[in-house]
Amino acid sequence: MESGMEKKTLVKPDGRQLILYSRTPIAGDIEATSPGTDPPGSKTHLRWHPLRGEWVAYASHRQNRTFLPPPEYNPLAPTTDPAHPTELPPGDYEVAVFENRFPTLTGRAEEPAPPSIVPTRPGKGACEVVVFTQDPNSSLGALPLWHLELLLEVWADRYRELGAREDVDYVMPFENRGVEVGVTLHHPHGQIYAYPFIPPVPARELEMQSAHLREHGSGLLDDLIRKELEDGRRMLYTGERSVAWMPAFARYSYEVWIAPRRPAGSVADLDAAERADFARALKTVLLKYDQLWGKPFPYIMVFHQAPTDGQPHPEAHLHIEFYPAYRMPGRLKYLAGSEIGAGVFTADTLPEEKVKELQAVEVKLD
Amino acid sequence: MESGMEKKTLVKPDGRQLILYSRTPIAGDIEATSPGTDPPGSKTHLRWHPLRGEWVAYASHRQNRTFLPPPEYNPLAPTTDPAHPTELPPGDYEVAVFENRFPTLTGRAEEPAPPSIVPTRPGKGACEVVVFTQDPNSSLGALPLWHLELLLEVWADRYRELGAREDVDYVMPFENRGVEVGVTLHHPHGQIYAYPFIPPVPARELEMQSAHLREHGSGLLDDLIRKELEDGRRMLYTGERSVAWMPAFARYSYEVWIAPRRPAGSVADLDAAERADFARALKTVLLKYDQLWGKPFPYIMVFHQAPTDGQPHPEAHLHIEFYPAYRMPGRLKYLAGSEIGAGVFTADTLPEEKVKELQAVEVKLD
Repeated sequence: MESGMEKKTLVKPDGRQLILYSRTPIAGDIEATSPGTDPPGSKTHLRWHPLRGEWVAYASHRQNRTFLPPPEYNPLAPTTDPAHPTELPPGDYEVAVFENRFPTLTGRAEEPAPPSIVPTRPGKGACEVVVFTQDPNSSLGALPLWHLELLLEVWADRYRELGAREDVDYVMPFENRGVEVGVTLHHPHGQIYAYPFIPPVPARELEMQSAHLREHGSGLLDDLIRKELEDGRRMLYTGERSVAWMPAFARYSYEVWIAPRRPAGSVADLDAAERADFARALKTVLLKYDQLWGKPFPYIMVFHQAPTDGQPHPEAHLHIEFYPAYRMPGRLKYLAGSEIGAGVFTADTLPEEKVKELQAVEVKLD
Repeated sequence: MESGMEKKTLVKPDGRQLILYSRTPIAGDIEATSPGTDPPGSKTHLRWHPLRGEWVAYASHRQNRTFLPPPEYNPLAPTTDPAHPTELPPGDYEVAVFENRFPTLTGRAEEPAPPSIVPTRPGKGACEVVVFTQDPNSSLGALPLWHLELLLEVWADRYRELGAREDVDYVMPFENRGVEVGVTLHHPHGQIYAYPFIPPVPARELEMQSAHLREHGSGLLDDLIRKELEDGRRMLYTGERSVAWMPAFARYSYEVWIAPRRPAGSVADLDAAERADFARALKTVLLKYDQLWGKPFPYIMVFHQAPTDGQPHPEAHLHIEFYPAYRMPGRLKYLAGSEIGAGVFTADTLPEEKVKELQAVEVKLD
């Protein structure tokens, strides 16, 4: 814990894990809470899609219908009414991580019924919720830089801890933000999916990165960052150790990537200076997004990093990809026939044009 | 034209192609119309996404802003007011196909500016609009069987004609239906994208199908259909020559596939009896969808068929995949972190359960 991160691991009344993180000591008498006491879901399995060559996850837990929360109940805020406990206890901590109550992937996954038509396997792995802050009205971009650095350390801790598990080959932190991408819970939070295999999207990226490394002896993202810096037209943050830019091949109108300049494989590989600069890049992008139209900017934010499958991955280069929901003010980008059916993204604007809108937004970091 | 399909090819005032199809003779004096006379868009190019290893399409045509349609203007209905011509002329025909005015892919695509960071190429290929009927208040499922059979012949004609082009390696008919998938034009219509390469999704499927064929000497979809028929739980239409079912590995809650029993490579390979049964399967599925909740059921419908790249494709087996927008009444399926970021679909219901809802809907074919 190079920067003095405090960590406290607790067990919820229903058996799930809760981990609290803070820059300052966490009181010893905090007790974990849970909205219910039913054991967490374990009925989740994977089926093989033989034409796409990929696993599909089926979580068929029965939702606990006896729990009727009061109208203002926020399950991600610290508990204030002991009669209606939330997922989090009151206390002095900044970030909290807990296992999803109805997980798509879980170490508790049971052996599925015998396979019929296609291969099946238990939905092993993990689904965690990362509560970014106790403040329900904040947002990732509104957090101060020190808090973002703490969060990067939390993601690093989860990468190490989940990645060390036998049933986890890939750790993917992400944030779905906004009703436009299906999020109804507005308390600032993200998720971590820890897959028991390397999922198709990062698998494809790593394959392309490996081929490039073999052929050129240099990293693919490394080379792309160097070229983007030389070109200069699509840069959004140019730090000494981290950069943010709209790739020349952006699929979404406001797609932005963030990466450390050094090809660190994962968020756990960042040193303190890289992490600080990565936090500045992240905050810069998030503030530009929210200030662009003066309202919260919905997106899917995904971490891409090295698998934890026990193999060396010199080709991996940590980066975040943002997939924003809108392609212009009030106009959603729908993924339809070509994107979903063929896998071919279509855009009616050029990255060189769209990036200017974000470049024009002046932001202040603290 | 085995079943006596009439076809008439015209040129619109702006230079685009219009093709009319009918079971009965089409009068010789029909003249093609167009909402404007500006030449169709040609500014479209592809850029290589080096991490995903796929092409991204950028169509940056300038929209013709001088055209101000009256409020009830429907560009897909036959022209009634010569002062405001639509895409279609009045006359006796049943189905019409024309080139998209602002296409993502077009044979007219110009050489893009020299590549900078990633390879680029012109956005060759074609984007066509298929108007299913002159009736703006109908829908694909509401059309009589003979009309659906005609449509299958139209799709076959487009497969042959577009597929024969040098710049077309893959012909993909699809329909985006409903505001939920971004469609604002309610006149019954679909689209055809003709790609200058085999797109990632069908490429992956064909790769898996090829491997299966090599290993087992039988078709992958062939074997799956046989197993689904034996299992029986997920069947929706069991015809002598065509079937419809919810696959055991369905990614979407109401996902349904339709295929001929014989592994015909494309819609152009169907014989008249197969086409008739395929039309029955299609109408059955569409009626079940619309009757399920008593309202139009939004979906993306995609044809999967053999590439037209000049190579033999014994592994290909024509099928339609439906990706419905809802996962239960009023609840959209959002593609978020896991689906978009990782490529791993998550469902909270099982195909064996969901299919019962569609099985319970009784439909009458004509």
